Amino acid sequence: MIIVMKPGVTDQDVEHLVERLRELGLQSQISTGEERTVVGVIGDDRILQNQPLTVFPGVESVTPVLAPWKLVSREFQKHDSVIDVNGVKVGGTKIAIMAGPCAVEKKELTVGIAKEVSSAGASILRGGAYKPRTSPYSFQGLGQEGLDYLVEARKQTGLPVVSEILDARDLGHFLEKADIIQIGARNMQNFELLKEVGDYDKPVLLKRGLSATIKELLLSAEYLMSRGNRNVMLCERGIRTFETQYRNTLDLTAVPTLKEMTHLPVIVDPSHATGKWNLVAPMAKAAIACGADGLLIEVHSNPECALCDGEESLKPSRFRDLMASLKLIAQAVGRDL
Amino acid sequence: MIIVMKPGVTDQDVEHLVERLRELGLQSQISTGEERTVVGVIGDDRILQNQPLTVFPGVESVTPVLAPWKLVSREFQKHDSVIDVNGVKVGGTKIAIMAGPCAVEKKELTVGIAKEVSSAGASILRGGAYKPRTSPYSFQGLGQEGLDYLVEARKQTGLPVVSEILDARDLGHFLEKADIIQIGARNMQNFELLKEVGDYDKPVLLKRGLSATIKELLLSAEYLMSRGNRNVMLCERGIRTFETQYRNTLDLTAVPTLKEMTHLPVIVDPSHATGKWNLVAPMAKAAIACGADGLLIEVHSNPECALCDGEESLKPSRFRDLMASLKLIAQAVGRDL
Amino acid sequence: MIIVMKPGVTDQDVEHLVERLRELGLQSQISTGEERTVVGVIGDDRILQNQPLTVFPGVESVTPVLAPWKLVSREFQKHDSVIDVNGVKVGGTKIAIMAGPCAVEKKELTVGIAKEVSSAGASILRGGAYKPRTSPYSFQGLGQEGLDYLVEARKQTGLPVVSEILDARDLGHFLEKADIIQIGARNMQNFELLKEVGDYDKPVLLKRGLSATIKELLLSAEYLMSRGNRNVMLCERGIRTFETQYRNTLDLTAVPTLKEMTHLPVIVDPSHATGKWNLVAPMAKAAIACGADGLLIEVHSNPECALCDGEESLKPSRFRDLMASLKLIAQAVGRDL
Amino acid sequence: MIIVMKPGVTDQDVEHLVERLRELGLQSQISTGEERTVVGVIGDDRILQNQPLTVFPGVESVTPVLAPWKLVSREFQKHDSVIDVNGVKVGGTKIAIMAGPCAVEKKELTVGIAKEVSSAGASILRGGAYKPRTSPYSFQGLGQEGLDYLVEARKQTGLPVVSEILDARDLGHFLEKADIIQIGARNMQNFELLKEVGDYDKPVLLKRGLSATIKELLLSAEYLMSRGNRNVMLCERGIRTFETQYRNTLDLTAVPTLKEMTHLPVIVDPSHATGKWNLVAPMAKAAIACGADGLLIEVHSNPECALCDGEESLKPSRFRDLMASLKLIAQAVGRDL
Repeated sequence: MIIVMKPGVTDQDVEHLVERLRELGLQSQISTGEERTVVGVIGDDRILQNQPLTVFPGVESVTPVLAPWKLVSREFQKHDSVIDVNGVKVGGTKIAIMAGPCAVEKKELTVGIAKEVSSAGASILRGGAYKPRTSPYSFQGLGQEGLDYLVEARKQTGLPVVSEILDARDLGHFLEKADIIQIGARNMQNFELLKEVGDYDKPVLLKRGLSATIKELLLSAEYLMSRGNRNVMLCERGIRTFETQYRNTLDLTAVPTLKEMTHLPVIVDPSHATGKWNLVAPMAKAAIACGADGLLIEVHSNPECALCDGEESLKPSRFRDLMASLKLIAQAVGRDL
Repeated sequence: MIIVMKPGVTDQDVEHLVERLRELGLQSQISTGEERTVVGVIGDDRILQNQPLTVFPGVESVTPVLAPWKLVSREFQKHDSVIDVNGVKVGGTKIAIMAGPCAVEKKELTVGIAKEVSSAGASILRGGAYKPRTSPYSFQGLGQEGLDYLVEARKQTGLPVVSEILDARDLGHFLEKADIIQIGARNMQNFELLKEVGDYDKPVLLKRGLSATIKELLLSAEYLMSRGNRNVMLCERGIRTFETQYRNTLDLTAVPTLKEMTHLPVIVDPSHATGKWNLVAPMAKAAIACGADGLLIEVHSNPECALCDGEESLKPSRFRDLMASLKLIAQAVGRDL
Repeated sequence: MIIVMKPGVTDQDVEHLVERLRELGLQSQISTGEERTVVGVIGDDRILQNQPLTVFPGVESVTPVLAPWKLVSREFQKHDSVIDVNGVKVGGTKIAIMAGPCAVEKKELTVGIAKEVSSAGASILRGGAYKPRTSPYSFQGLGQEGLDYLVEARKQTGLPVVSEILDARDLGHFLEKADIIQIGARNMQNFELLKEVGDYDKPVLLKRGLSATIKELLLSAEYLMSRGNRNVMLCERGIRTFETQYRNTLDLTAVPTLKEMTHLPVIVDPSHATGKWNLVAPMAKAAIACGADGLLIEVHSNPECALCDGEESLKPSRFRDLMASLKLIAQAVGRDL
Repeated sequence: MIIVMKPGVTDQDVEHLVERLRELGLQSQISTGEERTVVGVIGDDRILQNQPLTVFPGVESVTPVLAPWKLVSREFQKHDSVIDVNGVKVGGTKIAIMAGPCAVEKKELTVGIAKEVSSAGASILRGGAYKPRTSPYSFQGLGQEGLDYLVEARKQTGLPVVSEILDARDLGHFLEKADIIQIGARNMQNFELLKEVGDYDKPVLLKRGLSATIKELLLSAEYLMSRGNRNVMLCERGIRTFETQYRNTLDLTAVPTLKEMTHLPVIVDPSHATGKWNLVAPMAKAAIACGADGLLIEVHSNPECALCDGEESLKPSRFRDLMASLKLIAQAVGRDL
């Protein structure tokens, strides 16, 4: 950690700061320039996360030298993590396509869509049983019953299942029935939930919050990993900006950036990011072109009557076409679906 | 709801849409201009929140006529809500100052700060027992023990207590020990938590999410009120923007805007918004000048050693000075502390 | 234009509004629902751009039915515009790669880089003679002399040249020496400059402002086209968001969105957007995958000593590799370099 | 400047970097910790603004120690600058109220409004002769004729005049006719314009760009001051965020922050920031409460027919009321109108 002192700082101020650092078991190295005195701190500066150093008299700014996370970093693990999801590998050469309805509605519909996406080449089935909805008057999901429909769909198609958890009290159901527990954008900093999910080794899909920085996403992943769960996948799903022409702004630069900073697989959700079905195909292609390890795509056999996010759902025939064009992009970057 | 059709839309497309609206119990009124056909929808267009109308062939855009909330609106209740917090009124002429440490640390310290803020004129004690921290390696709060220290501080000072809940499973403790349950920015869209807290009539302080719009904040309040809890206070605490010179950007325009749209009291938290103790006083004054009904202010007797957010905590003497200058501003806008 | 009136609006208020609309030559159609009265306005609602209708008593909101632009829209011209840049076509099947140094520094260096990018397959040479720099103490560009070096480079390689104009008084030089006039992000709303450049038919590359919406970008293009210049190319180059891990957030969703809304070619600048050379290749691939008609890429033979933006410049060998991989992506989407 | 090297950096990489720094006349101090090597650079690190150091092999991050500006900083000048605007002081105890129409429309109207705002207590007249409009089809201002009307209004009221310049070629007219040259948000980074206006000592009102950081605003002011113009006033006028309930988000935290970082006066424009007349009064009060040295407020005698921004204009009677309540706030913070 590097501490820059204000111009005209007194020796007592510097002394007072160094004293405090010493109490914390850290050594200081003072260098005095023409315009500023700089205090370099030697030792594990993660200790300093709990210390409000800018509040000390004479301190102008504090810059950490080390990242505040450990287990998620490339420095900690050089090779890519490959997560085994009930036999399907996520994070290797093969790109994982997770497709299905936004919300689970009826059993036959769910199984029908599962069969469609399976035959089109998807490797994992997505579907929301519990739905976080902005308005209390919107459809709130089927809950446990929805999970059961997904289990039935898995039985009939063999596709592993990813579904979003909203409440730690449902964790038992998810451990039993889901193959990947999705932690949604709104819960990326629900730290209690992260801690509890982190206590198991069930694969987790951690979505980036609507206004979460890359650093905050990695710290949330660190919550999971520091409790023992190594099967973490990250998901970029659009961030909130001033642009209102589409629902969110898909931040694809996050993909190569995350691949450089962490060993964890990176998934992209073009459906929620754009909120418009006709933007899903181009953004899905772009995601694979810049290095994503997988995609989350919404498919519904009758978008006009979907109870949730019909606007962004692809019909099965369009999904099939998309899979064909994604295959070409994957090959162009040396990968496969 | 007003539906604008694309240029060159066919009669069948319009027919197909009107048919669907009829199924939903809604009447349509078609008007054909030179460049566009417009479908006006008569009936409660809240039904449409679950209907993906933009997905219908020929639809260009859909604009709602009515707000998606009801109970929180000025239209529903013209007069200001005044919340009774264990005898202290929030939302009337008197401005409520809620002050105390960011995190509850030790019993004596907590009681000591409570006495300081009480004698300076604060009317409610704030203090975090459960702390949502970005990093898993930061101090996570004392939990239940922290609530007990707040209870002790209340006993000795008479100040009602506001504290943040992170997990619905702790609701029993909060109902028993806290006077206001705070729902923090990260949980503004934790809808399960909102529903459960909404089932009681314990006063709630609902903080705006880091990138939540005014509309989303009102919809989250509607979650609480639609379950029966009428004692809701809203809190502006800074939003996330591109500016990095301060922690967040305090959006004070939200204050008069909310006062116009809703009857609920509006509180401002300049401490978390700015993240710097020297910006707290000017922003606290500005908040009252533009119509806030209360303030949340962090006070700590030894910020240099605070376990959480020492950078933004005022020392008791500075808090006392601030109260004096706030009194003048309050009087200038016809109110009182 | 659709005008929603407030609840409890009086007949006089509605009358007063309708009267004003009549004065402006517009017909109104009033429909009264249970909760709101809605006034539909028939006629060219572009007239209303100068009319502050929300200020009329009783008006709750005003929603335009038509886009505020005309010439740039797909509605006005269904087929893609293909711009002829001194023989090089931009906007057709072939993707245009515009490469070169951020700033023009020395003649030999400029010619050298031009030869490198030409032999690697670039079709247009980019280079800044006039540089908009955030700090007055940064290198400000060579000005006219820089344009001359670009002319020399064109002579030796045959590559048409794109360069940024900062001041309308230099327009003569640009008309004479450049093949494409670039209007940079900071000048996207320099309307005087737009008007003057719009008076010629020299091709223009119009970059999106740092916080400009898609709508504002199209309106700036409309400035150019409404003066007569039909040779307009749009460029997405990153927008400003809360994320600080990279310089800007490349908004690739703008690409398919613009291709749907307008007939103009869409170029992407991954170099300025990311500000990091190692992110240029993945984002260049993503841009082509989602439908970009061209790329702007910074190449410098000695980035360590570049006078401007060395951080984001590719060395010629890396650019050559990138061209090879872009070719594969282009083919995967049915196009060619 | 502090340079943190990547883990596993080689001695040659460090040597190579130190060598380059030596060429630039800078001394280095290397300190090797357990996890990172850090290079401290001694000497004026402003030299480094043109040096792309992150591009050197082995460099992880570069952190400047000194701010990139000089003349605008509090460090350079401790006392507040007070600007003399044709006899009216801006930046002292008295708060300057600059009021008038958004756009200058007709002579009588302009003079009429000037008399109204003067009699209500405004000290400076604002009015736009040249108007930057998002759409080419909106009213573009009267140009020189508009300036003449302002001159006439000044003759009749004695109020100095502030008006926005759009094109450096009009500078002569502004030097002759205006008392303050306003550089609008869209031109904050029109560096050519800044340089030319910086060559005179005519007072300048520099507005913050829509997505400009505090640092960029200060660097633009440094452009003006480094050319010799010391009469610079800064203006916060709202930034662009995700919130769409009001036109922009007024960033009042910028006020005390700027007052701490720079000696220049800080003005606030609540009219443009909010875009709604009913939000002007509360935000004007808040601006003064947090330390603004002046306000820009739009006043129009007939907002319903205003050719520009009628939505946000106060009628003279409302402006008069506002002045009365601002007086109370000013007194509460120890100042006066």
